[in-house]
Amino acid sequence: EYLSSQPSPMASKLEPNRNKNYDPKKPHITDTPLTRYNWYKHVNWLNVTLIVLVPVYGMIGAFWTPLYWQTAVFSILYYFATGLGITAGYHRLWAHTSYSATWPLRVFLAAVGGGAVEGSVRWWARDHRAHHRYTDTEKDPYSVRKGLLYSHFGWMLMKQNPKRIGRTDISDLNEDPVVVWQHRHYLKVVLFMGLILPTLVSGLVWGDYLGGFVYAGILRIFFIQQATFCVNSLAHWLGDQPFDDRNSPRDHILTALVTLGEGYHNFHHEFPSDYRNAIEWHQYDPTKWFIWTMKQLGLAYDLKTFKQNEIEKGRVQQAQKKLDQKRAKLDWGVPLDQLPVLEWDEYVDQCKNGRGLIAVAGVVHDVTEFISQHPGGKAMIKSGIGKDATSMFNGGVYMHSNGAHNLLSTMRVGVIRGGAEVEIWKRSYAAQSEYLKDGS
Amino acid sequence: EYLSSQPSPMASKLEPNRNKNYDPKKPHITDTPLTRYNWYKHVNWLNVTLIVLVPVYGMIGAFWTPLYWQTAVFSILYYFATGLGITAGYHRLWAHTSYSATWPLRVFLAAVGGGAVEGSVRWWARDHRAHHRYTDTEKDPYSVRKGLLYSHFGWMLMKQNPKRIGRTDISDLNEDPVVVWQHRHYLKVVLFMGLILPTLVSGLVWGDYLGGFVYAGILRIFFIQQATFCVNSLAHWLGDQPFDDRNSPRDHILTALVTLGEGYHNFHHEFPSDYRNAIEWHQYDPTKWFIWTMKQLGLAYDLKTFKQNEIEKGRVQQAQKKLDQKRAKLDWGVPLDQLPVLEWDEYVDQCKNGRGLIAVAGVVHDVTEFISQHPGGKAMIKSGIGKDATSMFNGGVYMHSNGAHNLLSTMRVGVIRGGAEVEIWKRSYAAQSEYLKDGS
Ligand code: HEM
Ligand code: HEM
Ligand SMILES: [Fe+2]
Ligand SMILES: [Fe+2]
Ligand SMILES: [Fe+2]
Ligand SMILES: [Fe+2]
Repeated sequence: EYLSSQPSPMASKLEPNRNKNYDPKKPHITDTPLTRYNWYKHVNWLNVTLIVLVPVYGMIGAFWTPLYWQTAVFSILYYFATGLGITAGYHRLWAHTSYSATWPLRVFLAAVGGGAVEGSVRWWARDHRAHHRYTDTEKDPYSVRKGLLYSHFGWMLMKQNPKRIGRTDISDLNEDPVVVWQHRHYLKVVLFMGLILPTLVSGLVWGDYLGGFVYAGILRIFFIQQATFCVNSLAHWLGDQPFDDRNSPRDHILTALVTLGEGYHNFHHEFPSDYRNAIEWHQYDPTKWFIWTMKQLGLAYDLKTFKQNEIEKGRVQQAQKKLDQKRAKLDWGVPLDQLPVLEWDEYVDQCKNGRGLIAVAGVVHDVTEFISQHPGGKAMIKSGIGKDATSMFNGGVYMHSNGAHNLLSTMRVGVIRGGAEVEIWKRSYAAQSEYLKDGS
Repeated sequence: EYLSSQPSPMASKLEPNRNKNYDPKKPHITDTPLTRYNWYKHVNWLNVTLIVLVPVYGMIGAFWTPLYWQTAVFSILYYFATGLGITAGYHRLWAHTSYSATWPLRVFLAAVGGGAVEGSVRWWARDHRAHHRYTDTEKDPYSVRKGLLYSHFGWMLMKQNPKRIGRTDISDLNEDPVVVWQHRHYLKVVLFMGLILPTLVSGLVWGDYLGGFVYAGILRIFFIQQATFCVNSLAHWLGDQPFDDRNSPRDHILTALVTLGEGYHNFHHEFPSDYRNAIEWHQYDPTKWFIWTMKQLGLAYDLKTFKQNEIEKGRVQQAQKKLDQKRAKLDWGVPLDQLPVLEWDEYVDQCKNGRGLIAVAGVVHDVTEFISQHPGGKAMIKSGIGKDATSMFNGGVYMHSNGAHNLLSTMRVGVIRGGAEVEIWKRSYAAQSEYLKDGS
């Protein structure tokens, strides 16, 4: 395989069998415990340089670099462009194939996505598919179960054992010439789109080469990296889980604001092939708006969405699960099948002997203590003692609230054989008929 | 009965058989339709005077009456005192007996409650019990089903047919000497507590007789009337229904703010004998705080609360009802009992003939159209065709999301007799055993 022998600048150590120096038979550094003496061998120095050292250098440089308003505006615009490269390109187009794009759009996305300095499409999408397929497990390359900082960028700063990451199918990406080209020329793409282009634009158009390099280049890279890393950390840590709470993904407006709309992450993990992350019009999802606009321009097509019916089903199921959990924590009274069985006559007898028993729907309740507290007055509740109070209780006299029904169920002491007095009469009648028949 | 022959200034026409001039045999004015010529006979002029004309007079008077800061502060304090007379006294103590009060507190509440000019405790509680017992029906004295303004004060401004209002038991109130005394001397109580006391306090302490009369008297009466009327209008119209949505009562923070905490009205109608209206510490219920403080001072006792378990049960039941309604609106696929039954061999045959069928958990799904859209790739899904894919689908190869399960159910086309291939083998084996047994 030609492609797999290509090193990718950020990912080399992460991709199994991709690095010429990597020999799967030799023990990997991650197999040896981290100590005072070998810690530097555990660190991925290339990534530390790209994610930490260069930004620090940029921040220091910013002290001596005046900020022109043109450079400020351009940095923000270029921040959004490179961000969309990751969210609309790397993520929704290539990792999830949630829509199709014509080649000009693909070239654009692969270019600006490269400018965000987060690895090649091919490497990024492979890891991301493993993240979806093995979410929260050992095989998840950035499992939040290993800590918030780990999922944010710890997984890149420290070396990973390539054997650990789950395998996924990326044959479709190997068929996309834009992806292949970007992967092959990744270092050139990063240098040009990440630093050279912003420097040149700022220098040639308004004469601010240095500002272009520091602000639109280095610092912009830092901000878009941190923002998109939040999809792996914040989006698995902060917010609600309206669709599934078995795994860590969560929905939160804050994450959406930071990540160009990738903050509805519980929805996204449930429906990853939907080109939207936010399904309500009022939610913030500029990546969705961008893709939709590209469609209007004829540059994107086959935008996939899950049917609203299926989405609502997921919501109903999760709500039901939550409700069942809450229900299980409450006391619902002694189950009917654990109650002693009384004959109707026994029930009436016990009431004559002074017990405050009331039969409602075949169940006998001891209301002795409750008589004096009855909101409908003592007289009313006493009128039900020793009788079948089913209809009185259920609207005949007063239609009791759900609360009253619940209270009633806490007072259960027995069930009546046959359910109610009427059953006694039915049985007597039947016995009589038999007798008459036999006699005739 | 002595008490029932006592006229109550605001309620005389509303109480059945209480007014000397009322003869239940004569047709009531409400039995004749409202026309251009008789409208003034339909109006309850006493109430119109007390609720509309006097406040208008007060507002006009306010133009010529300077407002001293002492009078302003006192008006607000007296507003809260008379408001608590209604909410903590009339409502929670007497109408609902949600706690017990020593006689000094009862006297205080009957006095300041009278100063709110909303009728005697006896009349107020009787109507309010009817409102709870017959909520939203013809027998509800202030049913919101007749319009928001009707429930607010329309029911007082227009004459009502006393026969219409539901009957309730107020024997306990007739046993409370404070209630009896207040009812008997109601006109004096109203005049003294509503107007004379605030005038005297403002006059004697800081010399503002006129301001005391206009602001702490008339206008304060107007505001506290309108505020407490909101319990019958706003609280049945605005907000959520976390406990029961069969009737109109609703919970809303706005109503609570206006009504000294009576805004959690869905809870209140469900648990009327609970001395609280707001059950969370952070919700606004100064009436509850007042009652609780009185308890600490030894003036109130036997504060009744519903068990948290019973309250949560109500919440769970209502949430379940909402969820069931939502579920019923969704498409859950063809029910299993409406699907044709296939033999296992038929299923395998059809797949050999080119149909993309996959059996999961005994149900056959037609995935022909879906193969090319499968997020896990064509190869994966094809590997399940003609087989029992139950375990592959449920984690053997990939643990599919709820969303995938739901999608699957929309593709149902048949059920397999016996559920799965293994059943065939079991049956064959059993038949064979029989055969062997017979042979031996
Ligand atoms: C058997 C056990 C009973 C229980 C646990 C019970 C419980 C309650 C509760 C909690 C209320 C307050 C309003 C509500 O939540 O709906 C209430 C009200 C009432 N109950 Fe009962 N009840 C019982 C039996 C009866 C019987 C047998 C009668 C009549 C024959 C009766 C008549 C009434 C009436 C008329 C009210 C309305 C009170 C009002 O708001 O004025 N109850 N009951
Ligand atoms: C029979 C009908 C099938 C349906 C409706 C279906 C549906 C889906 C859906 C919606 C996903 C997206 C992720 C998710 O929502 O869980 C998915 C992913 C996947 N499916 Fe299926 N699937 C089917 C059959 C199969 C079979 C038979 C296999 C394997 C033998 C399979 C293997 C996978 C794998 C490995 C993924 C993960 C894709 C990734 O995220 O990399 N599926 N499937
Ligand atoms: Fe994720
Ligand atoms: Fe994703
Ligand atoms: Fe109400
Ligand atoms: Fe009430």
